[in-house]
Amino acid sequence: MLAQSMTEQQLDQAPLFVGIDGGGSKCLAIIYQQDKILGTGVAGPANPYHGFEQSIDSVISATQKALIDAELAPQKIHDLVAGVGLAGVNLPHLFDKVSKWDHPFKVMFLTTDLHIACLGSHQGEDGAVIITGTGSCGFSGSGEQPLVVGAHGFPHGDKGSGAWLGFSAIEHVLLAMDGLAEQTVLTEKVSEVLGCSNDLELVAAISGQKSGFFAKLARSVFDAADNDDQVAMNIVKDGAGYISELARKLWQTNPGRMSIIGGLSPRLVPWLDKDVAQRLSAPLAPPEMGAIFFAKDQLAAHTTIDLQKTAKVQLSAQQKAEA
Amino acid sequence: MLAQSMTEQQLDQAPLFVGIDGGGSKCLAIIYQQDKILGTGVAGPANPYHGFEQSIDSVISATQKALIDAELAPQKIHDLVAGVGLAGVNLPHLFDKVSKWDHPFKVMFLTTDLHIACLGSHQGEDGAVIITGTGSCGFSGSGEQPLVVGAHGFPHGDKGSGAWLGFSAIEHVLLAMDGLAEQTVLTEKVSEVLGCSNDLELVAAISGQKSGFFAKLARSVFDAADNDDQVAMNIVKDGAGYISELARKLWQTNPGRMSIIGGLSPRLVPWLDKDVAQRLSAPLAPPEMGAIFFAKDQLAAHTTIDLQKTAKVQLSAQQKAEA
Repeated sequence: MLAQSMTEQQLDQAPLFVGIDGGGSKCLAIIYQQDKILGTGVAGPANPYHGFEQSIDSVISATQKALIDAELAPQKIHDLVAGVGLAGVNLPHLFDKVSKWDHPFKVMFLTTDLHIACLGSHQGEDGAVIITGTGSCGFSGSGEQPLVVGAHGFPHGDKGSGAWLGFSAIEHVLLAMDGLAEQTVLTEKVSEVLGCSNDLELVAAISGQKSGFFAKLARSVFDAADNDDQVAMNIVKDGAGYISELARKLWQTNPGRMSIIGGLSPRLVPWLDKDVAQRLSAPLAPPEMGAIFFAKDQLAAHTTIDLQKTAKVQLSAQQKAEA
Repeated sequence: MLAQSMTEQQLDQAPLFVGIDGGGSKCLAIIYQQDKILGTGVAGPANPYHGFEQSIDSVISATQKALIDAELAPQKIHDLVAGVGLAGVNLPHLFDKVSKWDHPFKVMFLTTDLHIACLGSHQGEDGAVIITGTGSCGFSGSGEQPLVVGAHGFPHGDKGSGAWLGFSAIEHVLLAMDGLAEQTVLTEKVSEVLGCSNDLELVAAISGQKSGFFAKLARSVFDAADNDDQVAMNIVKDGAGYISELARKLWQTNPGRMSIIGGLSPRLVPWLDKDVAQRLSAPLAPPEMGAIFFAKDQLAAHTTIDLQKTAKVQLSAQQKAEA
């Protein structure tokens, strides 16, 4: 679906961008040139915290699929100016590892998934964003330095996330199976979904599972909470209370505009404190478009210097580490 | 240190036992014959939930060290009647896996670490036991079937354990580092112990760590709680409250006698509910002696049948699975 209005020459002159949004469950790519989205692609997980090689593979695969969708040749990958936002690279050692990757792009600008989500939500302008999907976190691009709240990962962090909700439900089910906590519709539902009739089967079923597995239970937790299941309500209220506090922390940076995005947000917003929920604005563009905004900004900032293949842009990650 | 009163012939006739207590941090072995402990050995972790090969290696290594200590030849391992109590084998698939192991003993009787801890605590008699170390769980050998409470593993279970206490402290520290929870002496202490000055360093430090890592922080949590640190007190009270409930559940089986063992118990007992703490009896023998009691009982029960190398005794694990 090449934009027909552009001449071949214009296409050759205007930079060809790829915007990448890589998270714990999937990786999205869009090919973009002169205000037009030429193609899109989706691949597997791309959070280097849970596997570097898998992440790299997903970034390449999503890009190749987007090039095919844009009816561009595979070797065009070497012409792409890449804006790459990945989960996990808020950790400095992972940011370094991905930065040192011998990538196939013309140039790669790397930042966090939070940063591109924020840029997308506010069309490249300043603002703040809360992401609640498999994980949870907050980001504000306003203020002197970007502020990241949460983004600590599962199971030690990510409170209020899908993984946290599912994991909390399982903790309760295990207690209930031992007769040390209440049996409710939720505990029966979780056992049914996982096909487990006792605690040994349940422990075996969750053995070695990652965050995505637990996040699949979040829907059951919300369903039960909406039906006044006390256990589910306690879990959801605890998680939503944390997200409300996180939102207030972000408001302290005077972001002007704040959005909430991610697969969990439609179910979570009704449980947020009223004052927080009422101040949320709709996201204006998806994170992968934020990756394009990021790449365009960085390219403009770097036109006077040599755009080496190894160009590194260590924005939010390093700034948080140094804070 | 061979018992000098026994003749060579007596030694050849009396069964030579090894008692094994394998847990998440270490594996203990004792060589035993005719009411005498001939030697002891210690090796690495032996919880097959966290690694089958490592567990097997630790069982063999601890046994070999105990044989050396007993001044017996290495090949005597083939004459040993082994009572083996391992963490993790309350899960049926792990019980099966260890049972099918081509072990070097004359015969192996396998059960859970809980079962041998209980047999040890009550000198081979009925009773109940609570184990609070890196993990937490309860076991009663009384009643129609053995009752296991907890033993679900970290991080989804093992409430009140050392790993749970340390993990709970870290969860709080991460919230505090984001300004979403109180900073206390405990949060400073945890950061200091782990050498972390911000949340990114802390997340990197705990990345991929297992239960033993978190359990090392339990001492700091108790120290802070004893000094009225509110965060530490809340964590310890929550954990101790669970252990008190677990104890009450075990008392329902009328065990007659109940003990608490494990590295955490001296610090935890003062935080238990008074009625629970006052009814606890001192353990009479360690778990590895419980493994000997178990092997002796099983050997006596099996003298009329063929003691094949593959003899399996699926006691508490299967019974719980079938319950």
